[in-house]
Amino acid sequence: MDYFAGIEAGGTKFKCIIASGPEDVLAEAVFPTTNPEETLPIVTNFLQEAAKRLKITLRGAGLACFGPLDLDTHSSTYGWITSTPKIAWCNYPILQYFQENLKIPVLIETDVNGAALGEGRWGSAIGLSDYVYMTVGTGIGGGVIHNFAPLFGMTHPEIGHMKIQPHPDDPFPGNCPYHTTCLEGLANAPSLAARWNTDPALLGDDHIAWKFEAYYLGQAIHNLILVCAPKKIILGGGVLRRKGLIERTRAETVEILNGYVESRYLEDMNEYIVPPALGDRAGVLGAIALLLD
Amino acid sequence: MDYFAGIEAGGTKFKCIIASGPEDVLAEAVFPTTNPEETLPIVTNFLQEAAKRLKITLRGAGLACFGPLDLDTHSSTYGWITSTPKIAWCNYPILQYFQENLKIPVLIETDVNGAALGEGRWGSAIGLSDYVYMTVGTGIGGGVIHNFAPLFGMTHPEIGHMKIQPHPDDPFPGNCPYHTTCLEGLANAPSLAARWNTDPALLGDDHIAWKFEAYYLGQAIHNLILVCAPKKIILGGGVLRRKGLIERTRAETVEILNGYVESRYLEDMNEYIVPPALGDRAGVLGAIALLLD
Repeated sequence: MDYFAGIEAGGTKFKCIIASGPEDVLAEAVFPTTNPEETLPIVTNFLQEAAKRLKITLRGAGLACFGPLDLDTHSSTYGWITSTPKIAWCNYPILQYFQENLKIPVLIETDVNGAALGEGRWGSAIGLSDYVYMTVGTGIGGGVIHNFAPLFGMTHPEIGHMKIQPHPDDPFPGNCPYHTTCLEGLANAPSLAARWNTDPALLGDDHIAWKFEAYYLGQAIHNLILVCAPKKIILGGGVLRRKGLIERTRAETVEILNGYVESRYLEDMNEYIVPPALGDRAGVLGAIALLLD
Repeated sequence: MDYFAGIEAGGTKFKCIIASGPEDVLAEAVFPTTNPEETLPIVTNFLQEAAKRLKITLRGAGLACFGPLDLDTHSSTYGWITSTPKIAWCNYPILQYFQENLKIPVLIETDVNGAALGEGRWGSAIGLSDYVYMTVGTGIGGGVIHNFAPLFGMTHPEIGHMKIQPHPDDPFPGNCPYHTTCLEGLANAPSLAARWNTDPALLGDDHIAWKFEAYYLGQAIHNLILVCAPKKIILGGGVLRRKGLIERTRAETVEILNGYVESRYLEDMNEYIVPPALGDRAGVLGAIALLLD
């Protein structure tokens, strides 16, 4: 059996795994994201020590990384984290760090593309050519898969910043420092906290906040359908742990689409908008899927 | 030299051409779109008579057709016009008609994908892997090109129906029978006519209508950038003939993006948002490009 390292580099924590797939995980750990000088040696050390202890040779490492990233293979800064608000990571060559220190082949993708590819190989989107993995938490992001590969044009998608309409009953002015009322500015966890002046976890399941949230996510899915026509939407992230939210989002999507798009994929919305089958491991397993694709 | 037939099937007229490319057009004609029994024999007759007169053999025909179309090659109704409001054309197997009557290879695409491919081969997007051709007229549609091919998922994109925000000073409730305030419902020619209660051609260049229009098109381009990251936007259609509108749309796009996306493609907006180089022939030449791709 071939074993690989999966690294999911997130804004608050790094998840690391050694596995051949979801049924065969040999080692796993989570470390806080502080700064590259502190965090990255802890990660490489964990992976190398674990491989030694397990008496295996890592065939490669996959890195599913927060961004924005430079993923233009023709660029001189390919594999760098670019203009992130996390100052310590700004313009940091994270791919090169792991290549030089792990001394095995390393591949990089955005965190959301990693999770999307994991779901395509082992999760909710097996066999599908076109789908979107969307995560709603501190940020909102999405991996857009087309023809079995992450869609990449002049850059990678940033679907969290698309413009949608505020709910007519929602006077919140929006929370995105760039776009005020984009999807993130209306519907990510910090926007919920700012809008309701409390930790969103403390809001009841019947609070109107979730009606608005479903309305925003429904519009985002509507726009995704009209721009890239995915065959499935996988909806994950901390905010989606809210009981009933995925059901409300399905209902809002149907109402907003209003029958305009005809496709057999839309006949059963319970099959069209689904949670990630790999749960919290989608990203870190997806990092390994990168090496297998 | 190999010659091909190009057919652009539009909601109000069919354009036909016999050519090897934009510099070598041998015959050209336009016929009104009435119903299949009347219009289609006129088109095939024109092409066959012209080929006979010119003493050439047509190598194939490309059809860039209004929709919605069934373009799922696994479907039993592949090549059919599906649920169009033009009743006479509803569920009409238009690809099969031309295959049987022209007795040459025929390929079909959406009208906007045809125009997009024409611009990619001979026009404003030569050599680009990822771009969007968007037309703003009676309807609003777009051909999304990714990796040099039309993006197709569970269906073809229908970017004209994405949700965007009404301008804060625009009380118009929207004109789309499905989505009221989607892009089409706010910014196509009939919406302009309904909003201002006049033929939009009669509005002055400085009318506030064009400020709103640019705001809507800027949001649409913003959303396209965040979902599929095209390297260029080609903006055509009757509404874009308005003096100054493309310049205003560039300015609104910059303001809405607010520096969030970094890419060398966005450095010069005069090169990023451009008119179609093939003008009114983009669609009908694009139909021929289908056969050459």
